[in-house]
Amino acid sequence: MYRTNAYAAQSADQPLGPFQITRREVGPHDVRIDILYCGVCHTDLHHVRNDWESSSYPMVPGHEIVGLVSKVGKHVADFKSGDTVGVGCMVDSCQHCEACAKGLEQYCLNAPTWTYGDLDRVTGQLTFGGYSKRIVVTEKFVIKIPQTLDLKAAAPLLCAGITTYSPLRHWKIGTGHQVGIVGLGGLGHMGVKLAKAMGAHVTVFTTSPWKVDDASRLGADVVLSTDKEVMRQHESSLDFILNTIPVSHDINPYVALLKRDGILVILGAIEPLEPGLDGDLIAFRRRSVASSLIGGIEETQEMINFCAEHGIAADVEVIPIQKINEAYDRMVKRDLKYRFVIDMASLKQESAGE
Amino acid sequence: MYRTNAYAAQSADQPLGPFQITRREVGPHDVRIDILYCGVCHTDLHHVRNDWESSSYPMVPGHEIVGLVSKVGKHVADFKSGDTVGVGCMVDSCQHCEACAKGLEQYCLNAPTWTYGDLDRVTGQLTFGGYSKRIVVTEKFVIKIPQTLDLKAAAPLLCAGITTYSPLRHWKIGTGHQVGIVGLGGLGHMGVKLAKAMGAHVTVFTTSPWKVDDASRLGADVVLSTDKEVMRQHESSLDFILNTIPVSHDINPYVALLKRDGILVILGAIEPLEPGLDGDLIAFRRRSVASSLIGGIEETQEMINFCAEHGIAADVEVIPIQKINEAYDRMVKRDLKYRFVIDMASLKQESAGE
Repeated sequence: MYRTNAYAAQSADQPLGPFQITRREVGPHDVRIDILYCGVCHTDLHHVRNDWESSSYPMVPGHEIVGLVSKVGKHVADFKSGDTVGVGCMVDSCQHCEACAKGLEQYCLNAPTWTYGDLDRVTGQLTFGGYSKRIVVTEKFVIKIPQTLDLKAAAPLLCAGITTYSPLRHWKIGTGHQVGIVGLGGLGHMGVKLAKAMGAHVTVFTTSPWKVDDASRLGADVVLSTDKEVMRQHESSLDFILNTIPVSHDINPYVALLKRDGILVILGAIEPLEPGLDGDLIAFRRRSVASSLIGGIEETQEMINFCAEHGIAADVEVIPIQKINEAYDRMVKRDLKYRFVIDMASLKQESAGE
Repeated sequence: MYRTNAYAAQSADQPLGPFQITRREVGPHDVRIDILYCGVCHTDLHHVRNDWESSSYPMVPGHEIVGLVSKVGKHVADFKSGDTVGVGCMVDSCQHCEACAKGLEQYCLNAPTWTYGDLDRVTGQLTFGGYSKRIVVTEKFVIKIPQTLDLKAAAPLLCAGITTYSPLRHWKIGTGHQVGIVGLGGLGHMGVKLAKAMGAHVTVFTTSPWKVDDASRLGADVVLSTDKEVMRQHESSLDFILNTIPVSHDINPYVALLKRDGILVILGAIEPLEPGLDGDLIAFRRRSVASSLIGGIEETQEMINFCAEHGIAADVEVIPIQKINEAYDRMVKRDLKYRFVIDMASLKQESAGE
């Protein structure tokens, strides 16, 4: 075990600030990463502020991590010092259940180990995320980042990227499909880029008039408001929708946009979606409402390679760690395009024991 | 046009009673059917009583019709007088849209013509259903009923049968699948028989202790109550659920029964399902909530043939037409096993003009 510096919340009321945390020693299958950039996911904000009343403190948020390998365990063959790598929402899983065997570690029947606020399967201690100088992760959960990708813009791919890529792949979206993206934030803007690169015709629905031009720039073929009449005119027109609205809302007007056999995937809201789903509305077109959770490790690597091949990354605003609380406030006001990424060089070395 | 006798509701307040209705003449592609039996669907009750505030009167309900061909149009080649045939929920559709071209007339983009309470595409007049002596239907929408099936027990297959068969087929349920049937009524009891015949392992969830033995007799491998603790013990255990609860209810405890990638199909409730679907619950196992509507004509024939091959039909209680209002009252009290079927011989000939 060694100590390293990080930015942590010590309770829901205490803003993030400098903190010393303990990382595990590099085991035979471990990779130590010196973190260069860490994306700021809306989930971080919820966890830091204990919005879901499930947070454990002290907490070092961050699960969109890009960095350089600085040390590898003796049995690690696929990584070496200096490699550019990434870590997403998971750092471990049971690795023997039916889901893990299929490369679906995010659905591990014994629960994956989340990158922060969870219990480390090796040490039994709290896991700490990427608002930190270093992280130690078992090699299985480390993603190779091709050098052709802009590293700061690649960080959000580890969560926002895979969260939108995985359902598009799972439900086999490609050329000839009419895809809707509801909400143009961190997830939505990745959804537009990825769906477009997969060959789909993309329609963006946004409540923010100032995002209309941007949606087109990101690749949307059509940009529509969520005005009732506009929505009604586009009923039964889409094969697939990624709904990234991050709070509970009436999904029925979006369900109505689906053609027969269309699927609406909920990616934002994690609470009950009120008012309730209209049984009639799904029956009369055999529509489905589904959801999915990030993606497996192999699929995350596939997504990164796909992004490198297609020149896709997130639109980011780089901030120093000292601006993180301000960034959270701006996220609440939706004042960003489209993801904050922390330049971890701003986190000066303050700690001993390294 | 000719007049024939039927049992009709003349308004939401007026119980069903004898009535004279007009049927169209037998056109070149039409089949005239002398009705032997007509199943009583819960939908009939809703329509008669105008529960959905969309009813048109006079109304002759009934869309689970079995009878004998008594006359065919000059271009009809596949049917002849004396054939045993059936008619379900639809009597026509546009027959040229993308859905109709795929044999999915129930999703006709120009709307199918419903068997009763709709407008006849030929005459522009109200359609009248099966609580009647005769019906005239375009041959495309007439189903052949093999003589090996008990005709009175076959009638409910035309709605309850196809409504459960179609989703089981669409989502490719068969050997090795764990299927749940929620609610053991007209739809549910057909769901048990069909899922079992397709090779699935079937678990029935019922709130009625007196139905437990019956569920086993119908073929269920496991019968469970909807007790909170029982449900919790069976979380993540099923691949597919047919939810036949006919009113709005909390679907989340049933969604929780699904394994990863499991699908819950709503077949009963047509109103908004309150409280709302929990986004988290579907995300963490990539679950889906869907619904479907009866089945296409070709699939209905396939279902009837499947039932004949496997010796499957509905469990019915035969009633004379004069007992229909009493039957509705018993349906509301769920006092039936599992479908009322009207013996149309009880509707004596009273009319002229035949």
